[in-house]
Amino acid sequence: MSQALPATIVATHLKRLRRTSPLTHVITNDVVTGFTANVLLALGAAPAMITAPEEAGAFAAMSSALSLNVGTLTSTQAATIRIAVQAANQAKTPWVLDPVAVGVLPYRTELCRELLKLHPTVIRGNASEIMALAGHATAGKGVDSADQSDQAIGAAQILANNCGAIVAVTGEIDYITDGARVVHVKAGDPLMTRVTGTGCALSSVVAAFVAGCEEKARLDAVASACAVMAIAGQRAAAQAKGPGSFVPLFLDKLYQLDAVTLAEALA
Amino acid sequence: MSQALPATIVATHLKRLRRTSPLTHVITNDVVTGFTANVLLALGAAPAMITAPEEAGAFAAMSSALSLNVGTLTSTQAATIRIAVQAANQAKTPWVLDPVAVGVLPYRTELCRELLKLHPTVIRGNASEIMALAGHATAGKGVDSADQSDQAIGAAQILANNCGAIVAVTGEIDYITDGARVVHVKAGDPLMTRVTGTGCALSSVVAAFVAGCEEKARLDAVASACAVMAIAGQRAAAQAKGPGSFVPLFLDKLYQLDAVTLAEALA
Amino acid sequence: MSQALPATIVATHLKRLRRTSPLTHVITNDVVTGFTANVLLALGAAPAMITAPEEAGAFAAMSSALSLNVGTLTSTQAATIRIAVQAANQAKTPWVLDPVAVGVLPYRTELCRELLKLHPTVIRGNASEIMALAGHATAGKGVDSADQSDQAIGAAQILANNCGAIVAVTGEIDYITDGARVVHVKAGDPLMTRVTGTGCALSSVVAAFVAGCEEKARLDAVASACAVMAIAGQRAAAQAKGPGSFVPLFLDKLYQLDAVTLAEALA
Repeated sequence: MSQALPATIVATHLKRLRRTSPLTHVITNDVVTGFTANVLLALGAAPAMITAPEEAGAFAAMSSALSLNVGTLTSTQAATIRIAVQAANQAKTPWVLDPVAVGVLPYRTELCRELLKLHPTVIRGNASEIMALAGHATAGKGVDSADQSDQAIGAAQILANNCGAIVAVTGEIDYITDGARVVHVKAGDPLMTRVTGTGCALSSVVAAFVAGCEEKARLDAVASACAVMAIAGQRAAAQAKGPGSFVPLFLDKLYQLDAVTLAEALA
Repeated sequence: MSQALPATIVATHLKRLRRTSPLTHVITNDVVTGFTANVLLALGAAPAMITAPEEAGAFAAMSSALSLNVGTLTSTQAATIRIAVQAANQAKTPWVLDPVAVGVLPYRTELCRELLKLHPTVIRGNASEIMALAGHATAGKGVDSADQSDQAIGAAQILANNCGAIVAVTGEIDYITDGARVVHVKAGDPLMTRVTGTGCALSSVVAAFVAGCEEKARLDAVASACAVMAIAGQRAAAQAKGPGSFVPLFLDKLYQLDAVTLAEALA
Repeated sequence: MSQALPATIVATHLKRLRRTSPLTHVITNDVVTGFTANVLLALGAAPAMITAPEEAGAFAAMSSALSLNVGTLTSTQAATIRIAVQAANQAKTPWVLDPVAVGVLPYRTELCRELLKLHPTVIRGNASEIMALAGHATAGKGVDSADQSDQAIGAAQILANNCGAIVAVTGEIDYITDGARVVHVKAGDPLMTRVTGTGCALSSVVAAFVAGCEEKARLDAVASACAVMAIAGQRAAAQAKGPGSFVPLFLDKLYQLDAVTLAEALA
């Protein structure tokens, strides 16, 4: 059984993010860098995409959170990721792993398995990715999930217990777990799948939400990140005429979200 | 003499694309990755930008089409492209070459000449690029064409015959040829040249349209790709106040295109 | 004491840019490539992002201006930058340095100090960056300035005199100096800081404005670039509902700017 997320929890975490404007170190794929930065800025975080092995360690150590996404992995980026994770762990910077298309391509699958052993704070993926990471069979095709998120709840719990991480499996409904408790977020809109980067950007939003968050509140913080993205998406989709008009509306809705709109959406 | 393209042909190919949602492997320049992904998603294709030499072969083989663009070529990308093309040819994945600024810079010109020998399924470029590839003199400056598309029809036919490829030379009017037959598409709007990536994205749309297409229907599929982009562009420009508002309108129009709007535009 | 910038000066430089459509070679960070290209296209310039060491020298030499930004510096990009600068200097192509987060990370700081010795035509940065480059203490955090632009006027003048460059320190108010004269631009809107790349894109707009500009008019050209971006930003923000709707409005306003709107804004 999963629990709903109270709007007051989401509002508290969003308020904290806006007050602290966490410096969020993002190492992500080529396709979504600009969109991800704009999502974080709209919410009130301070993103920086530092990509060189020569700089990633120092920057991960001085950042409030680190977000990793292997969507367009290269060997240089793999080196950068290893350095950033080591520095983050030493500096106790929380970090998020977004294992795009893990299980589909061996090169990134190996790196993701290696990263699992380095204690990610959070893992955020679609159902196929979470099932692949947990060693379950999946029907993933390319970078999209071929499985429903509720099919991956068990895999998410196993993964959370094995890694000591919060695991978020996102889709039509999002499920977030620490291995024991499971929280769900029902919101969003199918139009979000017709725009590139909503899932990737969510992973970086998760990083910004866990920045400076007490360990016991992390599950709520991750679920709150899922909620703000899903609610802004739902509100944008209600006004959009297609995926083109969706994007500016979505960023505006993220910028405008407040306790009232959150309470309405999660009522 | 060139032929007009019937709206029913375009509608058939667009319907097929939406039904099959072809996994389209895109290796393109840094500037247009996000826009290209959004164009493909708006139409209903499933884009993935896999860029590492370690992954590109496996992914090209499992994809329904491959799109290559040398706009921001690097030596690593050249290696990736060679691996992807070899795998695509072995797996019979159709592939599209977009030879950005070929003839202007020797490094990419050499790679493009090498790729011509590997039997691209389609070549899509502006007039200066197609003329340069065919060995004709051009007036190209930077990445823009300095020649009109009708000046390049002869070069396009020679190139098509030499390579066994469909060649599309795009501009104010688009001409698409298999060496013998020439089809034209008259639509679009000058505002499309004030937005980055409309040509680059078209090449990836061409890839998605030739995915799973019978060889004898490929010329029509390529022309249909040109038509949907030009018609959506024309419809967006009619409502836009400038290149900024053009982009969301353009993606919405791609998403909304149907047999009725195609018939109106090509009447 | 700083001087205001007359609208007629801005209009003259904008008109020249639109008439000549300068080929602008941009080597910038991964996050802002698409946005930067769209800003330059909206204004009427011809951007091209050529990134390989194999191509950057030839392209810098044939371009009308070169714009360099170290926001996501890598070792390959550092090599490209060195080659491009050498070629630009030989061909007398003016070039702009945007020293993102200089002083925060040693790797880019070393490169920026090396580039200072190679006679940049213009340096454009926020207060923390300009102060760091001039060797002053700063409070910079990540990629954002923690200092006000007027605190950096002295540093900007020292830097301008040491390098023989025009220096623009931008923020709530922009200050542009050749070491002696200081011009200010008061416009813009805080919403511009909630969108990624407005500062980075400005540096490339500065490059397009100094392209083909006589040396004695360069300070005015740089200030004019700052003015068009600030005025378009102010006009977009007046209509925007958030950072999402700001972006298309901003590009439309850049496209629409004319002598009348400039005169209104700078009255």
